[in-house]
Amino acid sequence: MAGNCFGKLFNLTTYGESHGPALGGVIDGCPPGISLDLEEIQNELNRRKPGQSKIVTQRKEPDTVEFHSGIFEGVTTGTPIGFVIKNTNQKSKDYSHIKDSYRPSHADYTYDKKYGLRDYRGGGRSSARETACRVVAGAIAKQVLKDIKITAYVSRVGTMGLDKPYEELDLTLVESNIVRCPDTEMAKKMEDYIKEVRSKGDTVGGVVSCVIQNVPAGLGEPVFDKLHAELGKAMLSINAVKGFEYGSGFHGSTMYGSDHNDAFNTDGTTKTNFSGGIQGGISNGMDIYFNVAFKPVATLIQEYQTIDKEGKVVKMQGKGRHDPCVVPRAVPIVEAMAALVITDFYLLNKIYQ
Amino acid sequence: MAGNCFGKLFNLTTYGESHGPALGGVIDGCPPGISLDLEEIQNELNRRKPGQSKIVTQRKEPDTVEFHSGIFEGVTTGTPIGFVIKNTNQKSKDYSHIKDSYRPSHADYTYDKKYGLRDYRGGGRSSARETACRVVAGAIAKQVLKDIKITAYVSRVGTMGLDKPYEELDLTLVESNIVRCPDTEMAKKMEDYIKEVRSKGDTVGGVVSCVIQNVPAGLGEPVFDKLHAELGKAMLSINAVKGFEYGSGFHGSTMYGSDHNDAFNTDGTTKTNFSGGIQGGISNGMDIYFNVAFKPVATLIQEYQTIDKEGKVVKMQGKGRHDPCVVPRAVPIVEAMAALVITDFYLLNKIYQ
Amino acid sequence: MAGNCFGKLFNLTTYGESHGPALGGVIDGCPPGISLDLEEIQNELNRRKPGQSKIVTQRKEPDTVEFHSGIFEGVTTGTPIGFVIKNTNQKSKDYSHIKDSYRPSHADYTYDKKYGLRDYRGGGRSSARETACRVVAGAIAKQVLKDIKITAYVSRVGTMGLDKPYEELDLTLVESNIVRCPDTEMAKKMEDYIKEVRSKGDTVGGVVSCVIQNVPAGLGEPVFDKLHAELGKAMLSINAVKGFEYGSGFHGSTMYGSDHNDAFNTDGTTKTNFSGGIQGGISNGMDIYFNVAFKPVATLIQEYQTIDKEGKVVKMQGKGRHDPCVVPRAVPIVEAMAALVITDFYLLNKIYQ
Amino acid sequence: MAGNCFGKLFNLTTYGESHGPALGGVIDGCPPGISLDLEEIQNELNRRKPGQSKIVTQRKEPDTVEFHSGIFEGVTTGTPIGFVIKNTNQKSKDYSHIKDSYRPSHADYTYDKKYGLRDYRGGGRSSARETACRVVAGAIAKQVLKDIKITAYVSRVGTMGLDKPYEELDLTLVESNIVRCPDTEMAKKMEDYIKEVRSKGDTVGGVVSCVIQNVPAGLGEPVFDKLHAELGKAMLSINAVKGFEYGSGFHGSTMYGSDHNDAFNTDGTTKTNFSGGIQGGISNGMDIYFNVAFKPVATLIQEYQTIDKEGKVVKMQGKGRHDPCVVPRAVPIVEAMAALVITDFYLLNKIYQ
Repeated sequence: MAGNCFGKLFNLTTYGESHGPALGGVIDGCPPGISLDLEEIQNELNRRKPGQSKIVTQRKEPDTVEFHSGIFEGVTTGTPIGFVIKNTNQKSKDYSHIKDSYRPSHADYTYDKKYGLRDYRGGGRSSARETACRVVAGAIAKQVLKDIKITAYVSRVGTMGLDKPYEELDLTLVESNIVRCPDTEMAKKMEDYIKEVRSKGDTVGGVVSCVIQNVPAGLGEPVFDKLHAELGKAMLSINAVKGFEYGSGFHGSTMYGSDHNDAFNTDGTTKTNFSGGIQGGISNGMDIYFNVAFKPVATLIQEYQTIDKEGKVVKMQGKGRHDPCVVPRAVPIVEAMAALVITDFYLLNKIYQ
Repeated sequence: MAGNCFGKLFNLTTYGESHGPALGGVIDGCPPGISLDLEEIQNELNRRKPGQSKIVTQRKEPDTVEFHSGIFEGVTTGTPIGFVIKNTNQKSKDYSHIKDSYRPSHADYTYDKKYGLRDYRGGGRSSARETACRVVAGAIAKQVLKDIKITAYVSRVGTMGLDKPYEELDLTLVESNIVRCPDTEMAKKMEDYIKEVRSKGDTVGGVVSCVIQNVPAGLGEPVFDKLHAELGKAMLSINAVKGFEYGSGFHGSTMYGSDHNDAFNTDGTTKTNFSGGIQGGISNGMDIYFNVAFKPVATLIQEYQTIDKEGKVVKMQGKGRHDPCVVPRAVPIVEAMAALVITDFYLLNKIYQ
Repeated sequence: MAGNCFGKLFNLTTYGESHGPALGGVIDGCPPGISLDLEEIQNELNRRKPGQSKIVTQRKEPDTVEFHSGIFEGVTTGTPIGFVIKNTNQKSKDYSHIKDSYRPSHADYTYDKKYGLRDYRGGGRSSARETACRVVAGAIAKQVLKDIKITAYVSRVGTMGLDKPYEELDLTLVESNIVRCPDTEMAKKMEDYIKEVRSKGDTVGGVVSCVIQNVPAGLGEPVFDKLHAELGKAMLSINAVKGFEYGSGFHGSTMYGSDHNDAFNTDGTTKTNFSGGIQGGISNGMDIYFNVAFKPVATLIQEYQTIDKEGKVVKMQGKGRHDPCVVPRAVPIVEAMAALVITDFYLLNKIYQ
Repeated sequence: MAGNCFGKLFNLTTYGESHGPALGGVIDGCPPGISLDLEEIQNELNRRKPGQSKIVTQRKEPDTVEFHSGIFEGVTTGTPIGFVIKNTNQKSKDYSHIKDSYRPSHADYTYDKKYGLRDYRGGGRSSARETACRVVAGAIAKQVLKDIKITAYVSRVGTMGLDKPYEELDLTLVESNIVRCPDTEMAKKMEDYIKEVRSKGDTVGGVVSCVIQNVPAGLGEPVFDKLHAELGKAMLSINAVKGFEYGSGFHGSTMYGSDHNDAFNTDGTTKTNFSGGIQGGISNGMDIYFNVAFKPVATLIQEYQTIDKEGKVVKMQGKGRHDPCVVPRAVPIVEAMAALVITDFYLLNKIYQ
């Protein structure tokens, strides 16, 4: 109810504040008998980790995951998988200046309005640090899914957008650069752009695109829990996300039906894929693809005015260790959330078999 | 689990196929003691009803809702509200030609893949006729919310878009025209455009925008069940929706943080509202606004080729009674889903009080 | 949340008051492709129906179920099954005398305390009439389960108890008498006893026992959702139930481990079955059996004193059409709830296969 | 879905195996602003702890709980409370002899049937060690409930039963003896009895009774989620429980309505309380009381025959550190589960206010 659980059959519950002793989570419903590659899980965490490159926050966290249960002799047992990621580099004093103030476009004000109090250190629970737990669960989900391939990449940084559809990109190049854009030329430009933005103490938004391949037809539930509705919720639940579109997306709203309809081939595949692999909320076996819009990070390394709890105007100076652009680190988070959604429907679909 | 329930505390379960005897639903969790205006509920249904104007499907359905429970002497009792909307104008023979074929960009193929069979009459459960039940529940939710005002309107039909932000529109004019666009001049153009599209047997997409006013600060749950994540899921669950964005949306991904941050006034309101009334997944008391993209309706009144269950190519001729553009009738559905989401969080928030 | 839903994968939501226009429900998650025997469903309803014999309430209700959706050409489609049972014999005036008074050991007082108001006619939502919807859903669940056989019977009426274990009874005789006790000699005594109790305007409690046969090993979830915990909840949710025990039950608490342990045969069956077919919350393939205790019906056909809303003492005279002993009609309800629980776990277990 | 979550608004998810590195859990939905007495939480854990007295298992575990989140400066923040209890005294070699065998009346066989494999060390997830996490959550729930007082006690050990109703007992004496029976004379007899049973390498069952005082009227949801149905499920989910009854319980099934009905006093209280504080599934403000039956522990310190995975007969010798009678340590567990149920309904009831 309180929003820290995700998924029905493959269920993740997370906890943890940015500057508490640890983050952690419980995965309930992981099928038994899966030989987990623990190194691969840590690899995914490393893709999200702060300090991994010059264009992300320089907070230093090893983000090492420890498993407490649900795995026996390297194999999942079907019982819940409890895990913990210790916080090692909390610098709480960094945040004492925001104790009584509300930073613009952060969750400081809304948490206080909702709960009457908040852990103000580093954004507390509202920090994107929470997504580390999602990456752990997503990495396990990917291993449940095996042949279903989920690939996210950066397709826009600020006004700098990659206009090619995913079919024209070499998705194996995503990890070849620190921006995580598969067009290496564009990646270089984006990297320079991000550095420039950071040098001004500013931040910039971006878009992460994602492709899911080898999804069998039949995943998703019609009506309220449509496959793309759950994907949308999953993506919108990621910090800083402002929009989601799949298949033809917002552009599709400008099209004629005669152009938009995906004609069938005789094997059930379609000649075009404006549907984005989903029809009536259920996968049709074609590639699923979608875009996720991220706003610019709210923390600027600039002086600014804001208000405190009493409504008095206060001057503040952004400091600390923050990302000038969130999308490079958001790539594994988008993949993780996609993996959670697909796994949930994959398991649910077994009931129909 | 099977996706026909929506909401936690204000919970709607719906049933019904396009051409079965009736649609219906159950609202569980409606607070007791609310004097329901039943006429107002029927009014909302009439806004969604087929045959209401020249630019929508001409299927004739009275769409009269009957209540079976949960209301006693005009007042809600806190027990579940069961309701039924009878189907009166089923023309099942209209659909016999699609029994063994898969219409492009419909859910025919995916339902067969998921369930192994389907009620092919009028799309069966995948028909947008199901949304009538959502409108009933949403109309009740609106009466629970009282002062919270939800207004949706058509902001785009095909390439014809309304570029003004909602603050510059007179939202009281939404119902003044059959397109439901508050800019009456633009509405006329859109109407002509839709008629032209229909005359070609074609269809076109569009966008519905929505504004929610007077929302108290504190609604929404952080992390997975963020207020905008639930709104997004709700909107994406509506038939034909391809995208959702709130506040600055996709445009926000091109912006700098220094432009995007919403500076506070001393009363806690903000000078700008790129946040769209939601920060960290929780309402901040400012207006919530969002856009919902609809694809063009898949049913064309044209001849086309497709495949049947055996994968053989068959020629088909679109016929029946369909909408050339779905957005005018989608306006009350968007409002209804928004009302369901807000009511759920409104009730949930009582726990914090 | 508000308690009118039951089950996860095979989910029943019910609505309806005793004296409203209709009761009804929605079954979400029924697997597709099941040829439903609708007559069999009505038969189950008839077993619960008022007026069926001389020892039950003489309210006359046909209790005819109408299906609105989810069944196409006699076969389930996987979409929700909506159904309605109309109330035809409401005599609301019978209940005007209780409008402002609280009948002892009914839910009048607690509904008023919880909701601030209530539909006082015939107990409103608190009436056991609601269980008709459970019987419909249970009858469908039984058809999903096919070979799993659920048999309930009356094992006690007041102090008159059947001391034989179920293995020594001929369970095919349950329907051979109006008490639904498989020991026909005992049944006759119980019948006479119930008539005698009724002649005094009094009521008496009883016990329903239930056996579930051919359950595969592996159903149930450990920890909180143990198979017997869900069975217990299901039974305790039936009106007038005061206790639940399975396997050795309360008697088991007096035993030694050396007597209670069920030694294995080499085929995995056990020599004794004090475990009641469930170990660690999971079925082991042996018969599941349990007892459900019902209190005496609270409505007496006698004069009595009670209080009204203002706390004033008022004299009342029980009248209307009520059951002197609830257990004969409770037999199909117990079976229905057992069927719902087993079906839910049966579907959930497919995830492990 | 997989059964490791409990509660709706005050939601507990647990993980952990008997001999893994740690147990732990997440409480989602704890209201903000509660000053937690952490020592009191540890006290509750100590009441459940192994090795606490001569009549319980001599496994030595400090059972120290560490909190990771959700508490800031001693006060709950409304965000999830993650906690961990490390296992320090795992003697996994103690259990190697059961790796391929199925102990009678344990969950070895059923886990293998369900999951295809199991963590055989100390019963793995099926161990009652899991209940330590419930006690942590229950101790927090008690602090949420403040004035609502929950007291459990041992009322039966084997055939040795306390026949007095709770009103005639001095419940402040529960902790005065190691059996946790408030009748100190009877407690002494029970203690001797348990020692005698243990000296034979045998075990014995028992009953825990529980009283909940100061519950406001109006808690509970009618129909499926009746207050006593959720209490019943909660109790039946505790390891070794075979039965649950509340108020008049099984004895009530032998009574006449004219004796069983609880006549009102003019203040809304009742002269008798056969209802057990609950009518129609909703609390009426009177004391809630119930009994929970526990079977004898399955592990005997005796030689016995059983089967292995291949169905071959094997001889085994019970050893290790086990409880001769589980009820003294079950007292805080029963209280904890009761606290979880009441807290959930207490929060849910705020919606009606």
